[in-house]
Amino acid sequence: MRAEIITIGDEILIGQIVDTNSAYISTELNKIGIQVYQITSIQDDRSHILAALSNAMNRVDIVLVTGGLGPTKDDITKQCFCEFFEDTLVENTQVLAHIKNIFSKYIKREPLPANLSQAQVPTKAKVLFNNHGTAPGMWMEKKDTVFVSMPGVPYEMKGLMQQEVLPGIINRFNRPYIFHKTLLTYGLGESAIADRIEDWEEALPDNIKLAYLPSLGRVRLRLSSKGPDKFLLRQAVNGQMEHLRSMLEDIAVGYEDETSVTQKIGGYLLEKGKTLSLAESCTGGALAQEITQHAGASAFYRGSVIPYATELKTSILGVEAHLIEKHNVVSIPVAEAMAVQATKVFASDYAIATTGIAGPDKGDGVDEVGTVCIAIATPKGVISEKFLFGAVRERVIKKSVNKAFEMLLKEISKN
Amino acid sequence: MRAEIITIGDEILIGQIVDTNSAYISTELNKIGIQVYQITSIQDDRSHILAALSNAMNRVDIVLVTGGLGPTKDDITKQCFCEFFEDTLVENTQVLAHIKNIFSKYIKREPLPANLSQAQVPTKAKVLFNNHGTAPGMWMEKKDTVFVSMPGVPYEMKGLMQQEVLPGIINRFNRPYIFHKTLLTYGLGESAIADRIEDWEEALPDNIKLAYLPSLGRVRLRLSSKGPDKFLLRQAVNGQMEHLRSMLEDIAVGYEDETSVTQKIGGYLLEKGKTLSLAESCTGGALAQEITQHAGASAFYRGSVIPYATELKTSILGVEAHLIEKHNVVSIPVAEAMAVQATKVFASDYAIATTGIAGPDKGDGVDEVGTVCIAIATPKGVISEKFLFGAVRERVIKKSVNKAFEMLLKEISKN
Repeated sequence: MRAEIITIGDEILIGQIVDTNSAYISTELNKIGIQVYQITSIQDDRSHILAALSNAMNRVDIVLVTGGLGPTKDDITKQCFCEFFEDTLVENTQVLAHIKNIFSKYIKREPLPANLSQAQVPTKAKVLFNNHGTAPGMWMEKKDTVFVSMPGVPYEMKGLMQQEVLPGIINRFNRPYIFHKTLLTYGLGESAIADRIEDWEEALPDNIKLAYLPSLGRVRLRLSSKGPDKFLLRQAVNGQMEHLRSMLEDIAVGYEDETSVTQKIGGYLLEKGKTLSLAESCTGGALAQEITQHAGASAFYRGSVIPYATELKTSILGVEAHLIEKHNVVSIPVAEAMAVQATKVFASDYAIATTGIAGPDKGDGVDEVGTVCIAIATPKGVISEKFLFGAVRERVIKKSVNKAFEMLLKEISKN
Repeated sequence: MRAEIITIGDEILIGQIVDTNSAYISTELNKIGIQVYQITSIQDDRSHILAALSNAMNRVDIVLVTGGLGPTKDDITKQCFCEFFEDTLVENTQVLAHIKNIFSKYIKREPLPANLSQAQVPTKAKVLFNNHGTAPGMWMEKKDTVFVSMPGVPYEMKGLMQQEVLPGIINRFNRPYIFHKTLLTYGLGESAIADRIEDWEEALPDNIKLAYLPSLGRVRLRLSSKGPDKFLLRQAVNGQMEHLRSMLEDIAVGYEDETSVTQKIGGYLLEKGKTLSLAESCTGGALAQEITQHAGASAFYRGSVIPYATELKTSILGVEAHLIEKHNVVSIPVAEAMAVQATKVFASDYAIATTGIAGPDKGDGVDEVGTVCIAIATPKGVISEKFLFGAVRERVIKKSVNKAFEMLLKEISKN
């Protein structure tokens, strides 16, 4: 069972927005055993939309289309669906009532003709109710291929996927089971890993696929398999994964699951009734932002200070000035003092501190660009490490964030 | 002149990563007058790669391929290029020396055979030097279509684009000029805007295209045009844009350019020798992260406090406890006090403060989820506003960030 995602909208093709919808849709389809065979992004252009629909029909069983359903003239997906399915538009009274309700309740003005026209749907379409917006989704079929049209606005699309599209696909198709398991490793390059596991990789059964995913100091190793029997599939992949992990025990840091590292940290802290604070210098809020993006952070996260200017490390956090003078602001003693002081200032059990040179300029530091010191204060003491994360600012910050959470998780999970 | 981007790699199709490369490539191609006609994401699968190359050749003049160039067995792009171009691989001595140099200098071990095999390139390829990694880029041509292969690692791809691919395209093709100009508006929906500007939109000349880009409380209106004469093109688009803006003066907040709002803020502050600090509660570090992601932030950004727990607003920032008791923590007086206190604690000229309920739970607040108070302290006083940003946590945070920077920029630019 294969799917194609078609995103319609000039804004993706001129680079004005990054397409995040496709990753979401792919993840959700994978969970129910549908393989995404291709993602195609095209403009709001009639002949190109028609060609893309027609090509996709020859490649896959399910075509999920996003975008081009707005009330303005540049949005033409619905007209193209009519042409492709040789159909005409008709007003749907349920959608019409929904649009009027949204306008009277939230927008507080009379809908315009363009707004009301969003209630027009192809006669052959099964209308999918969009409770987050005015544009309905549409489910149509041609030559055994299912075509679904959804708005491109991410939260409207997500609502439709969960409430209408995924249940519809589950109901309509017999699907195999897809299982991925990903091992996280740190400290060895992909080719060195490949060399170490070569014999095992050669002997992998045909239905299990290995992928190397290198990124910012980590290599993730993903095993994937697909088949009708969920139990056998999981057993086979888990067996191979155990074997793989045993060969990489020195660099393995755990399995990747849908829970992010910060969610795992939150889970541990909540379970143990402990709290966290942050003292971020070179990461400049990136750690806090990762923590607070998840609901429920206030139950364990006390707060942060970002003492970007050096003297604030003393005035706000209470790091002794002589420490900074003696060791330099980017140093293990200063990172450790920042972490310990954060636990005091914020009355938290744990704290992360970062101090470093994100670059591209050295600033007033004596160290190389990319030098970062990370310290973790715990109820049992403080640990720290100095890193060299390269010269690209964005990567230095991201690697620091990854490493800091990895270090914290390790400390929390062993206490 | 049209281009297609083909991204190769299972990780995009199973939703494990979001494809950010395509937005970057699209933006860069647009700048030099190349229109991206389609973006296609496919798996590391031989027959699918060959079909995609062949289909793209029939659609466009330039095909930029990313991914599948790693040293491991799952990467097969180079083999597919050989098959597509009926070519064979040969060792490139310059690339070989580069690989050996990277290993001796950075990785500090002997390269493995798999690493050395990255120096193998098709005999017909023009090799593009990748100074950020071991996999070279390749430039090949077939039936007047240019095919370029680049690694999928974003910073390697970006280096190749800037140093090799864009100069190569500029040199190889006569290109038209493409010009976009985007007006930012706030406070009116897209259909209401469309209704107001209907007559003007109908009368737009054929070579100027209007797009509506609604997002998180803003609608951006983009005018695009393409043609041989840069001067005439800019004049035509600018003239139409002036007309458009005059019809929307009440909701227009400015033009979008490549400088982000935070870069503009940084520019103003530097120019005036002023400084900024932040007191973020509900935005939880998202403001700081936006500011510090750009190099040079330390020249104007003093630091932040994130007093996530209510009592920290008093203990760290010095907001009087009776204010919080009397007005509630999510209130205009508390937001204003946070901003004013931040300018004192951080010795900054300006400060932004946010306090709100990001949701999805109400917490201990008495206000509705999505209620956010934002205050801006300036050398001339403090301004503030209370908002209702809906019930989706991620959107509440993003809308708060957008609004806070918009308010700050307005204050800075008028002083």
